[in-house]
Amino acid sequence: MNTEDKTNQIADFFSELHKNLHSKIRPYEDSNFFIEDEWKKENLGRGTSIVVDQGSFFDKAGINFSRISGESLPISSVGNKDNSVDMPFFATGVSVVFHPNNPNIPTAHLNVRYFCTFKDGQIFEEWFGGGFDLTPYVLFEEDCINWHKAAKKACDSTNEKLYKAFKKNCDEYFFIKHRKEHRGIGGIFYEKYKAESLDDGLKLSQDVCEAFTNSYIEIIEKRKNLEFEERDKEFQKFRRGRYVEFNLVYDRGTLFGLQTGGRIESILMSLPNDVAWRYKFDDNLTEKEKNLYKFVREPKDWIDGT
Amino acid sequence: MNTEDKTNQIADFFSELHKNLHSKIRPYEDSNFFIEDEWKKENLGRGTSIVVDQGSFFDKAGINFSRISGESLPISSVGNKDNSVDMPFFATGVSVVFHPNNPNIPTAHLNVRYFCTFKDGQIFEEWFGGGFDLTPYVLFEEDCINWHKAAKKACDSTNEKLYKAFKKNCDEYFFIKHRKEHRGIGGIFYEKYKAESLDDGLKLSQDVCEAFTNSYIEIIEKRKNLEFEERDKEFQKFRRGRYVEFNLVYDRGTLFGLQTGGRIESILMSLPNDVAWRYKFDDNLTEKEKNLYKFVREPKDWIDGT
Repeated sequence: MNTEDKTNQIADFFSELHKNLHSKIRPYEDSNFFIEDEWKKENLGRGTSIVVDQGSFFDKAGINFSRISGESLPISSVGNKDNSVDMPFFATGVSVVFHPNNPNIPTAHLNVRYFCTFKDGQIFEEWFGGGFDLTPYVLFEEDCINWHKAAKKACDSTNEKLYKAFKKNCDEYFFIKHRKEHRGIGGIFYEKYKAESLDDGLKLSQDVCEAFTNSYIEIIEKRKNLEFEERDKEFQKFRRGRYVEFNLVYDRGTLFGLQTGGRIESILMSLPNDVAWRYKFDDNLTEKEKNLYKFVREPKDWIDGT
Repeated sequence: MNTEDKTNQIADFFSELHKNLHSKIRPYEDSNFFIEDEWKKENLGRGTSIVVDQGSFFDKAGINFSRISGESLPISSVGNKDNSVDMPFFATGVSVVFHPNNPNIPTAHLNVRYFCTFKDGQIFEEWFGGGFDLTPYVLFEEDCINWHKAAKKACDSTNEKLYKAFKKNCDEYFFIKHRKEHRGIGGIFYEKYKAESLDDGLKLSQDVCEAFTNSYIEIIEKRKNLEFEERDKEFQKFRRGRYVEFNLVYDRGTLFGLQTGGRIESILMSLPNDVAWRYKFDDNLTEKEKNLYKFVREPKDWIDGT
């Protein structure tokens, strides 16, 4: 199979993951709020962005598929000492961010992707990246435990050593250095994972994607009817500011998108609608809010309970 | 005079500018909303942050004075080829951001500062930085012209060549590359200005500070009673997202603060309370809104009218 057929097949595989995820989430939002955009950018690639903007269930939701290629792989995607930096590349994947209105339901993020670089018309190197993480506004320990159990199960089916490494990597990556806080309670994250085979890598991507979707839907079902007060909304708006800080200051995925001249609307669909940077808001927190801070300040082993 | 007495005197000078600016702005906000924080950070320095958070006139206002020193001047403040990088340094200055509630009144920013670095207990190099820029949500050409005239006058009293260079520098600096947009309609900006004498540099700082305050108050007086619609607020919230994007992705001042371990609450007081990242919001703009875009996409010579 030539490289073009191969990368097309891989892109189709991720496109299927995208469709499945979309169809599973769709029942939770009034269908009038879904905006579906097929986009193309010359000398870059194409994608499908499905967005909810000020919906009845989601403040903002972005479900994005893309397949792009370029002449020079940016450092932001692999680090400056990598063999593949500056080489011609192909990348395809799914990235998802959910910002629900109800503060009892966390913000959630998923990304699964395939990368390869080329030399002399052949694939030089190929790898997978991805993961998912959860950003609660109200902490339900049960949800965090289930989230991590789902992550572990998805990893275990490929290799029982993966979860521990990916979980640690997630805690390190989603860290807001200037706040000394993590973005949330983590999950899994892997940046340059060389699978044993292409099929193994695709299967891991699928397992991760499905674990994310099912686990998030489980949380939605449990929390969607919980009531909340004005103060909970205010706290959520404030904490969303941290989310924006992470994405704009530290996130290599965002930087990669901006550096490759990606579609801005699709890259920044991760940013919510209703955000407030209040002054010293965290000096006067309620007990419930303080409880959340315990968990974002110090990562926890959710499965072993330490 | 020893270096400590000298830097103390300079800090006192900027502290006076801070007090004057504060007292001139104070009448526009209900005094109950002003929060005044004297802060100290060990191995860094001290400052005074005066903040309005969800006030009746300001969504957010920050009027900050600080004097800090450190063992190693970060690259973010001068660029990596500068003689003073990594040297022990002292810095003092005033930084101000106003985000009014009424979208007819622009967001405005000012910064004036003094820096020096040390070698063998003596001052090795010293310079001034600063400037101000305006971010309108509704464009009143008259206000932009007056704003730039005030900037020019402040520069001219030191040297008639300065305005042109500082104006150009401002247009280049406050540019949101991924949006291909400027943060607003500019003003002046200078990063490492070596004044003819210390007194000249202090006088420029004072002139810039006063021009900013007087010119901004003139705008407030003209626009504060203008009514606005829900749509104007929505557009303002959306455009504030661009302000956040600039400050978190590009602003060297913000980066400098975060890298020197500054007081986060004072550094990020530049970020407003009511922000929304709407999806493709700028695809359907009103004529009034489109008019604003013309001016943020292409800098204009406001004084000569080209």
